[in-house]
Amino acid sequence: MNIAVMGYGTVGSGVVEIINKRGTKIVGKSSPCELSVKYILDLRDFPGDPNAGKFTKDFNKILNDESIKVVVETMGGVNPAFDFTSSALKAGKHVVTSNKELVAEKGLELLSIAKENNVNFLFEASVGGGIPIIRPLSVCLAANEVKSINGILNGTTNFILTKMISDNMSFEAALKIAQENGYAEKDPTADVEGHDACRKICILAALGFGNHVYPKNVHCEGITKIMLEDVAYASSYDSVIKLIGTAEKLEDGKLYIIVSPAVVKLSSQLSSVNDVFNAVLVDGDEVGEVVFYGKGAGKLPTASAVVADVIDCANHQDTRRLIGWENENPDIIADYKTIPNQYYIRLMVEDYTAVLPKLKNLFGNIHLLARSGAGTHEIAFITEKFTETDIRNKLSTLKGSDLKSLIRVANC
Amino acid sequence: MNIAVMGYGTVGSGVVEIINKRGTKIVGKSSPCELSVKYILDLRDFPGDPNAGKFTKDFNKILNDESIKVVVETMGGVNPAFDFTSSALKAGKHVVTSNKELVAEKGLELLSIAKENNVNFLFEASVGGGIPIIRPLSVCLAANEVKSINGILNGTTNFILTKMISDNMSFEAALKIAQENGYAEKDPTADVEGHDACRKICILAALGFGNHVYPKNVHCEGITKIMLEDVAYASSYDSVIKLIGTAEKLEDGKLYIIVSPAVVKLSSQLSSVNDVFNAVLVDGDEVGEVVFYGKGAGKLPTASAVVADVIDCANHQDTRRLIGWENENPDIIADYKTIPNQYYIRLMVEDYTAVLPKLKNLFGNIHLLARSGAGTHEIAFITEKFTETDIRNKLSTLKGSDLKSLIRVANC
Repeated sequence: MNIAVMGYGTVGSGVVEIINKRGTKIVGKSSPCELSVKYILDLRDFPGDPNAGKFTKDFNKILNDESIKVVVETMGGVNPAFDFTSSALKAGKHVVTSNKELVAEKGLELLSIAKENNVNFLFEASVGGGIPIIRPLSVCLAANEVKSINGILNGTTNFILTKMISDNMSFEAALKIAQENGYAEKDPTADVEGHDACRKICILAALGFGNHVYPKNVHCEGITKIMLEDVAYASSYDSVIKLIGTAEKLEDGKLYIIVSPAVVKLSSQLSSVNDVFNAVLVDGDEVGEVVFYGKGAGKLPTASAVVADVIDCANHQDTRRLIGWENENPDIIADYKTIPNQYYIRLMVEDYTAVLPKLKNLFGNIHLLARSGAGTHEIAFITEKFTETDIRNKLSTLKGSDLKSLIRVANC
Repeated sequence: MNIAVMGYGTVGSGVVEIINKRGTKIVGKSSPCELSVKYILDLRDFPGDPNAGKFTKDFNKILNDESIKVVVETMGGVNPAFDFTSSALKAGKHVVTSNKELVAEKGLELLSIAKENNVNFLFEASVGGGIPIIRPLSVCLAANEVKSINGILNGTTNFILTKMISDNMSFEAALKIAQENGYAEKDPTADVEGHDACRKICILAALGFGNHVYPKNVHCEGITKIMLEDVAYASSYDSVIKLIGTAEKLEDGKLYIIVSPAVVKLSSQLSSVNDVFNAVLVDGDEVGEVVFYGKGAGKLPTASAVVADVIDCANHQDTRRLIGWENENPDIIADYKTIPNQYYIRLMVEDYTAVLPKLKNLFGNIHLLARSGAGTHEIAFITEKFTETDIRNKLSTLKGSDLKSLIRVANC
């Protein structure tokens, strides 16, 4: 079976590499058809590339070639990926993508176009790189009502936080090492500000809870403000700070969805996920907690998930996998500031002994934290459950205090 | 869509409970058809059961009812489960099972009958209870050559070992608590001798490496001989003892497959899997290590995996999922005794100081272990890589020593 790959970057070139290596062999295990890359669409030139004869800059060549049954979209970004993908689907071609931005922004529309044209739009590689998560969540856990999804969804930030926790390295120093190792881009904004993780939790929430969630409607905080002081205090609480994407069905039916740093207890399965690894913890009402763990990025891991989707299309060419969700219901998304949660708070204060009774008065039970080297003007503690709005209101009554950190405690 | 459930034990009654609760609702998300349990086959009577009208003792009632499209087999054992399952498949009905013994012994045959009759034989629940593992391994990781599979595949033994490790409890005492909590059967043989884990690693090996492996051809050791002394020595080596099922492709193309206790380093993802939890670690050549974790047993977790397979059948009634493997090739299974591996050895000796130079002479580098309370007649150490045959030959030359424990060190 002929396929076309659109976008010859990291993932796209990995897809071509894997299919060239074993296109026949793997699919041959269970199906008579073979995989072969016929076109590679990219506007750039790749002189000396062994796939020289396959490059094209003209999308219509792919669109109009009836021998192309599956199109792989690994261009990234919404445009022109969306136009190309929707045109391919309308032409009766299956499309497989690793592009989380495309799925998070346009997944609802593309799944509906796929349905109308009786073809598949598959995106296993869009979350967790090579870790199987999309298909397990949508098929294997289908008998469950999902209660919550919590994930470490971005390898770059997890690498940086691991360096901060294990090597006592500042955010800036850890980011530099991540960039030197190729784990972070020159412009690391999408990773360190949480936007990448946000797209992924939106995709998982749509699969788990049945409504599209647009990233712009999700509160998203990155890790740039995490200080080593916070890491040390978390450690004294038998916890680590991780960037966690959370989507949780509340008792009133609303959805609590957020990406932010969180204090994660060492007893959580997510606390030991280090370096560039990702993990997704799904809590289902029948199955309880299940965790999916592995490398969440990288050329070949991500490409292997794309190729698995291509193989699935090849093996079931005339079948559409039933996957989809409803339009976004903005009313369903709860205001994160109104959801009671435990919080970690670090303040700079003028007079520790004077402020302590006031804090107890404001918050009731607080769990005071300690770190070596803390001056007498710093105070850190864990609260009982309060809304963020409540906490900010209470703190605003404390004269002479300066809020340095306010981090939620994860419920997983 | 009407289904029949054969076997109203723990898992079967869970399947009926979940479908009664939400048969319409979940499937309705993506498909117009509803699930409804029409028959429950069981030779026992269940007076007062709310499903009273559905019980039958006559399999032919199910077989001859054309409205039954999917049959759930949760009887356990090979007979009569095999006869009923093959008859149902031949009658054009999809069959979903949680019965690992049936899949491990008769999977090859049943998949072939399913193929001939263009129906599905699905068994997600046969390994890891509710943890998605069968479909992720066969579909999501299809672009990988699997290098190895290592798993904690039995919750009962993992519970017992956790009690031994965390609470310093003997095997016998921990087994008693497992029985009191309903985690172990009155006759715990199948669990504690490793037979249950063996069936599961055989199923995973077939999926991962493409050939059926019969449990009788796999070396299988249980945990009954593990002593607290071994637990203590492992701890001094930053390790825990776990019952590990391993299937690994060797460089010569042969398959190293074994179920036995193993010394697992704390740096392994499997070391922190405690209590009744299961985890499967798959190492793929493209994706690297991925881990699937969750409750590996229990009524509703396992039933939820069965119902997910039923939903998959309902959603794709006219499609056969391409899943299968080749006949067993007995030549492919390596003799485990000839595979070099690191081993943990504990000996009782007459004279510690006299035996030590002899051990170094026999084994070269050894890593000596210590535990508090060990007498001067006990010696424990980790070897470099040797075959078990080599090790036993070497030890047989040591006069006045008594081999108490010989446990492989896990490679995961």
